[in-house]
Amino acid sequence: MEKTLESFVKTADWKNEKHVPVIDAPASVKTGETFDVDVTVGKEIPHPNTVEHHIAWIALHYVPEGAQTSIEIARLDLSAHGVNAFTAASAKFRVALQKGGALYATAYCNLHGLWASSAAIAVE
Amino acid sequence: MEKTLESFVKTADWKNEKHVPVIDAPASVKTGETFDVDVTVGKEIPHPNTVEHHIAWIALHYVPEGAQTSIEIARLDLSAHGVNAFTAASAKFRVALQKGGALYATAYCNLHGLWASSAAIAVE
Amino acid sequence: MEKTLESFVKTADWKNEKHVPVIDAPASVKTGETFDVDVTVGKEIPHPNTVEHHIAWIALHYVPEGAQTSIEIARLDLSAHGVNAFTAASAKFRVALQKGGALYATAYCNLHGLWASSAAIAVE
Amino acid sequence: MEKTLESFVKTADWKNEKHVPVIDAPASVKTGETFDVDVTVGKEIPHPNTVEHHIAWIALHYVPEGAQTSIEIARLDLSAHGVNAFTAASAKFRVALQKGGALYATAYCNLHGLWASSAAIAVE
Repeated sequence: MEKTLESFVKTADWKNEKHVPVIDAPASVKTGETFDVDVTVGKEIPHPNTVEHHIAWIALHYVPEGAQTSIEIARLDLSAHGVNAFTAASAKFRVALQKGGALYATAYCNLHGLWASSAAIAVE
Repeated sequence: MEKTLESFVKTADWKNEKHVPVIDAPASVKTGETFDVDVTVGKEIPHPNTVEHHIAWIALHYVPEGAQTSIEIARLDLSAHGVNAFTAASAKFRVALQKGGALYATAYCNLHGLWASSAAIAVE
Repeated sequence: MEKTLESFVKTADWKNEKHVPVIDAPASVKTGETFDVDVTVGKEIPHPNTVEHHIAWIALHYVPEGAQTSIEIARLDLSAHGVNAFTAASAKFRVALQKGGALYATAYCNLHGLWASSAAIAVE
Repeated sequence: MEKTLESFVKTADWKNEKHVPVIDAPASVKTGETFDVDVTVGKEIPHPNTVEHHIAWIALHYVPEGAQTSIEIARLDLSAHGVNAFTAASAKFRVALQKGGALYATAYCNLHGLWASSAAIAVE
């Protein structure tokens, strides 16, 4: 019996581990109001940003409280890692929700795989 | 303590559940030789393909045996679900590996979230 | 002789046309310094954001002055257009450049196709 | 006045130029019937497939005859270019159309930018 892909998704304390996506979002928002969710990889310890070693994408998912299904909100593909242009491993997602729940950030490093973090969000 | 996103990734018997990605790949391949990995969602029971309900993407990851890190091989984004054009929830990935391990298919339904399956592959 | 895909990429005055991506970036930046490029679709006239009609992605490309080749910087895929979550047709790209040139934003509407705009940027 | 991004999309004879996406599709299909569109980059002269130099994605768009708007059908993101796994610069898109028109393939090389080709398709 194989492991699942999910068992390879890593998490850690972002203050010690440069791969962990850090979610900055309000703890509470109003129903249907647009707010920003910032997700940064390497917030404390910068991650390399080279063609050989880089964060390739950052995705944001959401699960309404009590739900059994996750919703993909958006995904940022990061294509330029040097040569002529760089793009930082940082995403701003502009979101509106009807219901509280959990936000999930996932980041993919081309050498060190999938990394995840989450944050609870209340909706009044 | 929140659940992880991974805990919402679903799996099931594809003969009874239309969301499960089915992997068709050789059981064994030669080192460095290119082979096809077909991934189909709705292989037994067709999945709807409408703007309101569709498979949005299919991704393929791989974990070499004994490794702790997953590698993203490719992702197919499916954009046309009616109006003027349709694209089926089916992907062909052309792959070459140096080492045996496990292939992981993930599919995302805009209404029913993340679904996964896996297949072992030997490399001689 | 067919037309090219490029001949279907549309542009217009964003004050009158809701599909045009509007680039907000500094006119001049320092070499290698990270800066933000905001790209918004529907800045003056909001674009619908429903499953049936929405902006599906926003991409940023760059051409260094005098170059013959464009560089893809990043792409934001917008996946949630209602039901449980919304994401706005707005992207923040964090960029560093070595040389001045032109930034190109492209947006795709599932009903009205490809739209583009550009902005010159100087690098000191 | 800047050039457009479209003016940097290159085309050439694929027999002499390894970047050009080659479309293999039927000349004529039946209304609503699913068929395969194969798009290969480097069909005659193989393109490098390394972390430093590779095809990053292949997209397929379509314009119904007489239409003014292009439709994105699908996009294949190619993520593995060595180290542990390779994926070839080749895509199979499974498509159904209601009307004849033109298929457009676009490929992006991380060093040499955007390349395009097209093919007419009749629908009976």
